[in-house]
Amino acid sequence: MTAFSYDLLSTDGTARRGRLHTAWGVVETPVFMPVGTAATVKGMMPESVKSTGASIILANTYHLMLRPGAERVGRLGGVRKMMGWDGPLLTDSGGFQVMSLGPLRKLDEDGVTFKSHLDGSKHRLTPERSTEIQHLLDATITMAFDECTPFPAEKTVAADSMRLSMRWAKRSRDAFVPREGYGQFGIVQGSVFADLRAESVAALGDIGFEGYAIGGLAVGEGQEAMFEALEFTTPLMQTDKPRYLMGVGKPSDLVGGVARGVDMFDCVLPTRSGRTGQGFTRRGPINIKNARHAEDNRPIDEACSCPACSRFSRAYLHHLFKADEVQGLMLLSWHNIQYYQDLMADMRAAIEAGTFAQFEKNFHAMQSLGDIDPLDP
Amino acid sequence: MTAFSYDLLSTDGTARRGRLHTAWGVVETPVFMPVGTAATVKGMMPESVKSTGASIILANTYHLMLRPGAERVGRLGGVRKMMGWDGPLLTDSGGFQVMSLGPLRKLDEDGVTFKSHLDGSKHRLTPERSTEIQHLLDATITMAFDECTPFPAEKTVAADSMRLSMRWAKRSRDAFVPREGYGQFGIVQGSVFADLRAESVAALGDIGFEGYAIGGLAVGEGQEAMFEALEFTTPLMQTDKPRYLMGVGKPSDLVGGVARGVDMFDCVLPTRSGRTGQGFTRRGPINIKNARHAEDNRPIDEACSCPACSRFSRAYLHHLFKADEVQGLMLLSWHNIQYYQDLMADMRAAIEAGTFAQFEKNFHAMQSLGDIDPLDP
Repeated sequence: MTAFSYDLLSTDGTARRGRLHTAWGVVETPVFMPVGTAATVKGMMPESVKSTGASIILANTYHLMLRPGAERVGRLGGVRKMMGWDGPLLTDSGGFQVMSLGPLRKLDEDGVTFKSHLDGSKHRLTPERSTEIQHLLDATITMAFDECTPFPAEKTVAADSMRLSMRWAKRSRDAFVPREGYGQFGIVQGSVFADLRAESVAALGDIGFEGYAIGGLAVGEGQEAMFEALEFTTPLMQTDKPRYLMGVGKPSDLVGGVARGVDMFDCVLPTRSGRTGQGFTRRGPINIKNARHAEDNRPIDEACSCPACSRFSRAYLHHLFKADEVQGLMLLSWHNIQYYQDLMADMRAAIEAGTFAQFEKNFHAMQSLGDIDPLDP
Repeated sequence: MTAFSYDLLSTDGTARRGRLHTAWGVVETPVFMPVGTAATVKGMMPESVKSTGASIILANTYHLMLRPGAERVGRLGGVRKMMGWDGPLLTDSGGFQVMSLGPLRKLDEDGVTFKSHLDGSKHRLTPERSTEIQHLLDATITMAFDECTPFPAEKTVAADSMRLSMRWAKRSRDAFVPREGYGQFGIVQGSVFADLRAESVAALGDIGFEGYAIGGLAVGEGQEAMFEALEFTTPLMQTDKPRYLMGVGKPSDLVGGVARGVDMFDCVLPTRSGRTGQGFTRRGPINIKNARHAEDNRPIDEACSCPACSRFSRAYLHHLFKADEVQGLMLLSWHNIQYYQDLMADMRAAIEAGTFAQFEKNFHAMQSLGDIDPLDP
């Protein structure tokens, strides 16, 4: 078996090119992890996800504990085996989803009691139970259970919330059952307050994890504030451990995150957009339902190698979305995941070549060009 | 280019083993054609359809003329090119769907005026326009425009309806633009009346088509009456032309149809069932949403080679359906199409071996066994 470890291969400014070794495969970083909330990346076969270059995916503790249930997934051999995913898997702790339930949840020092959004049934998550569930799900990377501090938050509220998360991080670590090639990440909180983020980084470092996530961002603070928070947080983090920015983001968020020293990302955006008709391209996003695509025989993105682009036209995809055909979301989700993976691969190559600043400039220039007019290609 | 032709390779009783040559590939018969109503076999990539052994698919004139529109499909290169289907394509004439609209349609000697189920807009189909549309769709096999006689029908009504369809068949033939490797089929009507079916067969034979379909069955008359109608119809039909039973059917309908000399079938059942949770197996159908599959690690059908069966458990499929995940319908539709193609391949092999009677007996014995109890496998 392989030990869980991270190699920092090279840097370019603050951007990092690394390699994560796990029991279930190697992850080249910076990496984007497609989200398979309920043990399926919506609308995609696992080998289709793999074919895009994705090396690690994410699944959600909250959804899977409710349905089909953590113990059941455990009896079925874990998420990877159940869904046929040939690679490492990261699970969140359930904390973020539970906090999103608002009045349906009640928090105390020990944990959180909440009602299921599915049937109103009562459930409880504590650091110990979240860690146990993630073990049952057979997560290659387990996340510490935390409170995702709402935004905006008064500093005293943010401090109390962060310190609770740090006490929970210790309990999560104590509950974690080490296995060769498996790891657990702590989550830095502290909202947009630099001193709180610093206190959180230090507290987690004292506990000691295989990696560290940055939580509580991409919750409404905006890209500028998020980048600012990264700028005062990542320099404090250990250089020999992977850094994961949770729930992020748009293509420009990924580029800005990598520029600021982030190694790992996850987001539902490429698949969610794929279901609603938004396709990401090297010249910015397009809405495939727009009438101007109705007879456009070009692919979504000429430079993309995915099946949607190499074998089907915008006109056909437009038709599939207009007719509410499931193949529309299958193809556009596939394309968007491919786009995200290509973007990460390009960033890895740029860091290796020492040309990341140029890459970033070109990326923004291309994105701002906008889509080519089909009448004047 | 290949001429459109049919070779009768061998017979076993009244069952026929044949081969259809078309411009876009060979079709081994008896054959089942998956339905791609709106230029997509719902929930399946075209190469997934192909991988099951499917050699020809069907698309619907009614749906495509309304959305995206026949002229538009024509400009996009036809249905095959637009949807990336590498094989022959059969289109229906629109007659059946238009008749199903009930009060939304008005029939006269020249054709049918109807309102779109999508937006209420007014449209007209005549034998000439239906044939022109199918040409625009680039159908490898075009169907004559007919009135699908409702069931039950008084004999005089059935006779009038059939004779109108025969006049329309002549006009459809006159409107057909012959192309090398392309063909047009006439449709036998006459409800459940043997003399009317005989009159229809003769009328179509006088016009002369590349193949003949049996229409107006599977419309509520029941399997026994359908088989009886086949028994007095197929013996009258030319032996050197393919025979197509439209819109049929359940697995036992296919076996009984082949036994009675039918060569071609189409039906939405495998994909529609795949969307609602019904899976076909060699021991009869199962409902994957049933709680008894929740922790069943076995495949849907042990003898099936499709991805759903070779790589995923009933438990996972059960979870996907419970969670309303699109991958559930993707996998179960794929399985059902594979089951249908395997059934046809088994029938072709049995006819070749001269063991079709034994095959039919075994098929019914296996189907009646029912699913294996997961608690006592």
